[in-house]
Amino acid sequence: MSSLLTVGSVAFDAIETPFGKTDKIVGGAATYIGLSSSYFTKDQKIISVVGDDFPAETIQFLESKGIDTEGLQIKKGEKSFFWSGKYHNDMNSRDTLVTELNVLENFDPTIPASYQGVDYLMLGNLAPTVQRQVIERLDVRPKLIALDTMNFWMDIMMDELKKTIKLIDVLIINDEEARQLSGEYSLKVAAKKIIEMGPKYLIIKKGEHGALLFHGEGIFFAPALPLEVVFDPTGAGDTFAGGFMGYLTKTDDVSFENMKRAIIAGSAMASFTVEKFGTDRIENLNEDEIYNRILQFVDLVDFSIDKK
Amino acid sequence: MSSLLTVGSVAFDAIETPFGKTDKIVGGAATYIGLSSSYFTKDQKIISVVGDDFPAETIQFLESKGIDTEGLQIKKGEKSFFWSGKYHNDMNSRDTLVTELNVLENFDPTIPASYQGVDYLMLGNLAPTVQRQVIERLDVRPKLIALDTMNFWMDIMMDELKKTIKLIDVLIINDEEARQLSGEYSLKVAAKKIIEMGPKYLIIKKGEHGALLFHGEGIFFAPALPLEVVFDPTGAGDTFAGGFMGYLTKTDDVSFENMKRAIIAGSAMASFTVEKFGTDRIENLNEDEIYNRILQFVDLVDFSIDKK
Repeated sequence: MSSLLTVGSVAFDAIETPFGKTDKIVGGAATYIGLSSSYFTKDQKIISVVGDDFPAETIQFLESKGIDTEGLQIKKGEKSFFWSGKYHNDMNSRDTLVTELNVLENFDPTIPASYQGVDYLMLGNLAPTVQRQVIERLDVRPKLIALDTMNFWMDIMMDELKKTIKLIDVLIINDEEARQLSGEYSLKVAAKKIIEMGPKYLIIKKGEHGALLFHGEGIFFAPALPLEVVFDPTGAGDTFAGGFMGYLTKTDDVSFENMKRAIIAGSAMASFTVEKFGTDRIENLNEDEIYNRILQFVDLVDFSIDKK
Repeated sequence: MSSLLTVGSVAFDAIETPFGKTDKIVGGAATYIGLSSSYFTKDQKIISVVGDDFPAETIQFLESKGIDTEGLQIKKGEKSFFWSGKYHNDMNSRDTLVTELNVLENFDPTIPASYQGVDYLMLGNLAPTVQRQVIERLDVRPKLIALDTMNFWMDIMMDELKKTIKLIDVLIINDEEARQLSGEYSLKVAAKKIIEMGPKYLIIKKGEHGALLFHGEGIFFAPALPLEVVFDPTGAGDTFAGGFMGYLTKTDDVSFENMKRAIIAGSAMASFTVEKFGTDRIENLNEDEIYNRILQFVDLVDFSIDKK
């Protein structure tokens, strides 16, 4: 059985959407990724850091989902990363109200000995220097390394980011970020340039418009499910990445054909996340729900053209 | 063999894009629709109006494509409809620089006797009152009536528009228009409301993000092909509608399954249009080009999920 290592923030969020607002709730990239992939693999480890303000029950809950938290550092006397944001009416844009780095400011990712030899590596959004440290500190290169990042790092650490993405296999970013990273408006041209920077696979997330997978001359388009209500988009991208990597870990097949299925799995998981605040909707899903949601994606793009 | 009647403008456009600008060139909804559907059906008629400034060669060219122009009125001493617009860098938004209604101002669509009994009717973007007149002046209701409209008519003639769309089968609009018509942001909720207004089928065009077909509980998503260059988006929506209706006319099958194929055909045709200025790219296509383009759409969304 293959194993998955996820690196990313475990944190607090406070979210405001047109549907309501939350106090501090549990969030963070590694939390969403970990929960999402837990429905596909039980051999999962995380590397992250929290302060001693972080609830022990949440860590126990992650453990109960099969997530090994030995690599989750708990810093005495320090505070966990905190982000607060407010979504606009169209849910496609948001304002960051507060960002308190706290423990993330000096995060030094240490790899427990039991994590060495992990098969798949998911680098959630963090400073590209930290993401690179993790790669360098693994004794054996994983079979596949995927990385998520943000325009924030492109603004302030573009060179470091480019050094890091040279080392990875799959880059997962959104359409705006792909345009910023490549300097090209056409996503097809942007993809070509980005793939020349190192990653063999590029996934461009387009939110409610689906996602594109580029590899060589191949392009795959995964739709997003039209939803009646998008309640809270927080974590949708991380949940997508978690479903994607969880599926690859479970099937242990990194072919282009299987990556397509993995993207559909990720899209299905993301379609759950946005239905409730925070991680609420993805805390207790069952296999049938997930499988039926995946079938909705199959139906959505199903058509046949008579062969000539 | 089934026949198709297209109603819409035949006109002049002057277009400016980041790639260049044109003088007055031939445009108009019925021109794009007619050219696009001519690759699927040779039994096609148009109803429109031009001034005597309109080039006879263009009318002959349309005839050479199998388009019956008996219903194309030529108004002596009057000028053809003229539109001029400028696209922004992202090609998703444009400013209208000039709109001269000219002959369209008092357009009275007369139906030649030889047009009666037509099987399929495509009502291109025009005043909803004129679109309704055409429906009322046909002795026999066509098998299927599709209608395209614009936010412009929603702003100034919403009641007339609602009266007209009560009479049709397929409404073809873009995402912004669907939101305006329904007052709903979620396209899924918008679709429900719009289908309650009359049309059994709703197509929501999302430009570079593809198109959605709604019918009862069924939803189909057709992707757009990622393109290296979008040279000029003018007429893309009309070309889409032309491919869609041409395909339905050719196959004479209005099932949901066949409509999916028709949308792919329309999307393929639209992907050609934007590659050059105006109608340039869709004037002389061949069957193989079109078929191969359609196969690219098949590949783009092709994936298989193991059945449980």
